[in-house]
Amino acid sequence: MALGEFELIDRFFRPAGAERPDVVLGIGDDGALLRPPPGFDLVAVTDMLNEGVHFPVGCAPESIGHRALAVNLSDVAAMGGTPAWALLALALPSSDEAWLAGFGAGFARLARAHDVALVGGDTTRGPLSVTVQVLGFVPQGQGLRRSGGQPGDVLFVSGWPGEAAAGLALELRGQGRDTAMETRLRQRFLFPTPRLELGRALLGVASACLDVSDGLLGDLGKLAAASGCGALLELEDLPLSAELLAHAGGARATELALAGGDDYELCFAVPPGRLAAWEALRSASGFVAQRIGRLQPGHGVELRRAGVPERFAHRGFDHFPH
Amino acid sequence: MALGEFELIDRFFRPAGAERPDVVLGIGDDGALLRPPPGFDLVAVTDMLNEGVHFPVGCAPESIGHRALAVNLSDVAAMGGTPAWALLALALPSSDEAWLAGFGAGFARLARAHDVALVGGDTTRGPLSVTVQVLGFVPQGQGLRRSGGQPGDVLFVSGWPGEAAAGLALELRGQGRDTAMETRLRQRFLFPTPRLELGRALLGVASACLDVSDGLLGDLGKLAAASGCGALLELEDLPLSAELLAHAGGARATELALAGGDDYELCFAVPPGRLAAWEALRSASGFVAQRIGRLQPGHGVELRRAGVPERFAHRGFDHFPH
Repeated sequence: MALGEFELIDRFFRPAGAERPDVVLGIGDDGALLRPPPGFDLVAVTDMLNEGVHFPVGCAPESIGHRALAVNLSDVAAMGGTPAWALLALALPSSDEAWLAGFGAGFARLARAHDVALVGGDTTRGPLSVTVQVLGFVPQGQGLRRSGGQPGDVLFVSGWPGEAAAGLALELRGQGRDTAMETRLRQRFLFPTPRLELGRALLGVASACLDVSDGLLGDLGKLAAASGCGALLELEDLPLSAELLAHAGGARATELALAGGDDYELCFAVPPGRLAAWEALRSASGFVAQRIGRLQPGHGVELRRAGVPERFAHRGFDHFPH
Repeated sequence: MALGEFELIDRFFRPAGAERPDVVLGIGDDGALLRPPPGFDLVAVTDMLNEGVHFPVGCAPESIGHRALAVNLSDVAAMGGTPAWALLALALPSSDEAWLAGFGAGFARLARAHDVALVGGDTTRGPLSVTVQVLGFVPQGQGLRRSGGQPGDVLFVSGWPGEAAAGLALELRGQGRDTAMETRLRQRFLFPTPRLELGRALLGVASACLDVSDGLLGDLGKLAAASGCGALLELEDLPLSAELLAHAGGARATELALAGGDDYELCFAVPPGRLAAWEALRSASGFVAQRIGRLQPGHGVELRRAGVPERFAHRGFDHFPH
């Protein structure tokens, strides 16, 4: 039996997040009433995922639920924030209960892992599209921005950029008998990990930070531009996982890492005077992040391999390319 | 020339709202940094509008920009809140500059009228769909809910329900040489007025409140159910505008007012002991709101005309009807 809009919200979305004492009033009224803690700024982010654009037609609903939240948590991480509350706007062609159960489960698992309450939303009929808004906190005046970098600051990227893009290519190829390596790559697209602990650790350490969602090269260019300088990216230092190298080969792995998108890793700058603090943090917490270059005077991103300039055509993802 | 995603955001969305000193960091980073005032709860709402569902294909972009914000402001009004910040997620089939200019103008005019800053968003490619989130404030612990009503509380509705539904029918009929009356009805669909001043005035006065978006009858039923009681709606007291009556006739006007949707008026309950306070407020501020019945023991909405029970089939809008 098809569910009505209101039963659907009751069944799948009321239980889809953590319970938090700062939610004065959650799902089910015209809006939510929330109590922000004193001494913090609010971090507010939103991201939309559309079928056929951000995920392939037929993508597993658990992945869509996870990613719709993860991409927003990644934005909160990039500001150094701690997420608290989410709102969900979902357009569905029909009320398919199996799909909704999968979507809700994927969303809920990630929400609970990060103590995020789902406090409201809107469910409408339309082509499959998911917009999530996440609100979080950061100590007043300390939120990380893209714009605080200076020439000389050392650049890092977390994790293994390019793996998600290789995973998306596997998804687009369709289901099949994956090798263990292919399964890992596919999971990196389907279930990205927002780097919230790392983002929080970077408060007071990084001078600039963003999340890599449209490709490292393009996103690093945005960080450099916002900081009013250029960047040098040393290709021999690009972290390419053994799986990505084995799957794609060196040249294609580099392309995927530079322009592939969907990584949801953090790219950040650390001033030379804070490198020791960062290294202490990294070894204490086991963060995976690789030094990839530095900010420099000028503008744009300069690529070098062992000191020799290289050119690269792709500049990252744009929904409305020229 | 088609605009890229990032130019599009710069051109149309950076200027699309008010400037506010509590916006620490606005559009252009991974997220916004916002400074909530102490002593207030946050009101958080979201609503999604999809082409062909919430507005007709080919609807004027100024109207879509206005309505995407207005329906959210109406939810804030229903909680007694004062809006402050908005986020906008927009899916577009292509970057049509004329459309974007119209959309941005419609959004910006309403945002500035209510001192709402556009602090972030996401612009993607996809079937035309707009999701807005609005954040606002209400004095701590005082937010209006649907659930506070008691049997005996007197029910009111603001404005002229049914006009927007008549206006939508005109829109669906297409452009034509409207009479002045038709123009008014059409405008009521295209450019609804969120009842923010009224919502704020109801703090400490109304026991329960919601906004009428899916039809008065269904929405009143939600208020009664949330309040754990029933409602009596006296049809002879239903406010039907002269324009609606002349355009649609009495029987159809009643149908439109009860089940038409898109009104974005407020329906609220006032305890008998606060009626004098409400009447004083109303006459001082010139609020247009009509007494339409009362909450009563039991459940469901009972309709009467001059004391005689009536039946009515439509129960309001559901995106996934059984």
